[in-house]
Amino acid sequence: MYIAALDIGGTKTIVAILDENGGILIQESFPSIVARYETHLELCVQAMKRLMHRTELQAEDFTGLGVSLPGIVDNEKGILLYAPYANWENVEAAGYLSKNLGISRVRCENDVNACAIGEKRFGLGNNYTDFIWMTVSTGVGGAVVEGSKLVRGGLGFAGELGHLKVEYKSPAHCPCGQYGCLEAHGSGTALIRETRKRRLTSPAFAKALDEMGLKPDGAGCAALARAGNTDALDILNQIGTYLGRGISYCINILNTQAVVIGGGVAASLDLLLPSIRVSVQQNAFKQMQDIDIVKTPLGYEAALLGAAALVLEQ
Amino acid sequence: MYIAALDIGGTKTIVAILDENGGILIQESFPSIVARYETHLELCVQAMKRLMHRTELQAEDFTGLGVSLPGIVDNEKGILLYAPYANWENVEAAGYLSKNLGISRVRCENDVNACAIGEKRFGLGNNYTDFIWMTVSTGVGGAVVEGSKLVRGGLGFAGELGHLKVEYKSPAHCPCGQYGCLEAHGSGTALIRETRKRRLTSPAFAKALDEMGLKPDGAGCAALARAGNTDALDILNQIGTYLGRGISYCINILNTQAVVIGGGVAASLDLLLPSIRVSVQQNAFKQMQDIDIVKTPLGYEAALLGAAALVLEQ
Repeated sequence: MYIAALDIGGTKTIVAILDENGGILIQESFPSIVARYETHLELCVQAMKRLMHRTELQAEDFTGLGVSLPGIVDNEKGILLYAPYANWENVEAAGYLSKNLGISRVRCENDVNACAIGEKRFGLGNNYTDFIWMTVSTGVGGAVVEGSKLVRGGLGFAGELGHLKVEYKSPAHCPCGQYGCLEAHGSGTALIRETRKRRLTSPAFAKALDEMGLKPDGAGCAALARAGNTDALDILNQIGTYLGRGISYCINILNTQAVVIGGGVAASLDLLLPSIRVSVQQNAFKQMQDIDIVKTPLGYEAALLGAAALVLEQ
Repeated sequence: MYIAALDIGGTKTIVAILDENGGILIQESFPSIVARYETHLELCVQAMKRLMHRTELQAEDFTGLGVSLPGIVDNEKGILLYAPYANWENVEAAGYLSKNLGISRVRCENDVNACAIGEKRFGLGNNYTDFIWMTVSTGVGGAVVEGSKLVRGGLGFAGELGHLKVEYKSPAHCPCGQYGCLEAHGSGTALIRETRKRRLTSPAFAKALDEMGLKPDGAGCAALARAGNTDALDILNQIGTYLGRGISYCINILNTQAVVIGGGVAASLDLLLPSIRVSVQQNAFKQMQDIDIVKTPLGYEAALLGAAALVLEQ
């Protein structure tokens, strides 16, 4: 049996067919059309039909279709309740996709939750009963696995790690309306902001960027840090310190065994890890601080693999 | 059937016989003898035997014996691994008590976990699938209930709420060796420290304490706050702000439905609640911040009732 999987992201959508071990047999990706969700879901159906045609698979060859969605999801009903970036509301994704693809078993999940479920089945998650998934990208998202199960919480919103407060002294404003959030201090956005700020305050840093032909962004800062630039290392240490604070809260509350990090900033995890570790040593309860902090092996396909994993969950 | 329950606290021990609805039929309490645990466990056995004699109950009339212990507990083996205040180590409590009382089913648990389990069965916990128990006393302890089950975490240490960092600007030293812990800023100890400090810096506050014949402690501060004293209200607002920060971390990570507060400081929860609420509004994710924050109805018997509840757990 095969699995159909759909990762509808904020900017990009991936449609794929996988085997039950998470092997991607065929995939297609295209930009997410945010104007009308009906148009976008129709494109997804067309793309999946193309893949089914090319693989000569029929609807009945699939265990099911898993869908990762970028927002608040009613996973029982398969409805995308709200997607902030696209302003989509109450999208009956499961119903539409099931009807138009003829696949009866359709499972939908919020993208970060999907990543955690994918990590559990196809990644490092199986090594742990308790772990935290953390997406560090433009924003910071999270999901909590405890006792080998995803924690949803009272309203299904558990894992809002991006809005943990990690700075009370000079708290930065966060898009959520509050101040001092991890998303405002330890995200890819914060990394870009601090890099640009440093370029204005440190002529040596500005010169180093110019000389290496680097942009004042996260990748530029990381490249300079790898070359030993002290300003760049200092910026990454700041980011790591804040990530460590957020991770420490998870450790103290949950005694979690591991944090698995995905998202664009995860590519620089080796540069962030020393300061994350120091921060965890300072902020997490001593007996619990020796946890694994690792980059996901699932890479950019984490949410897609998570979508596929949904179908295999009971 | 009846339940035998034993709450061995840091300073006081309660021995009791309860019915299966948590009604206390008879109880006896005495100071905890910390010098030798063997002596103390022997006193517990003698006390329980007295209660059994007075109620004319035999070992076979009991569903079991539940024991709340003040430290790190291996609840599967019924061993107190370490009690920091008494320096007890590797106390095989379940084995000793079972043998000497003739009750075969003995269940042991850390005191804060016991409180959460007791709250779940006999208190407010049954209203929620997800809640946090918080003891605010000399220190701050916690336990996490998620999906109607106690969260233990990888090593069994989950719920270390007292060592969540809530102050990075002027962090106070904590007995754990770190700085800025909730226990150092939002505990009964912090309340006393701030009250004493304020007495030295505010002559009006010192005078108000003297005039009302109040000691410079938590109860004194609370009494002045009830009389409308602005210094006292300010101190309690500080404590409440820090408690709100710690509670906000629990909300963001777990989307918990409620926080149930016990311990000595819970008596002043009505005075703390306004600042806790403001702090939660500022620090918890907007869609999740409307949770119940309530005082336990179990009072000083929370751990004892928790011990009894252990026996009724599957």
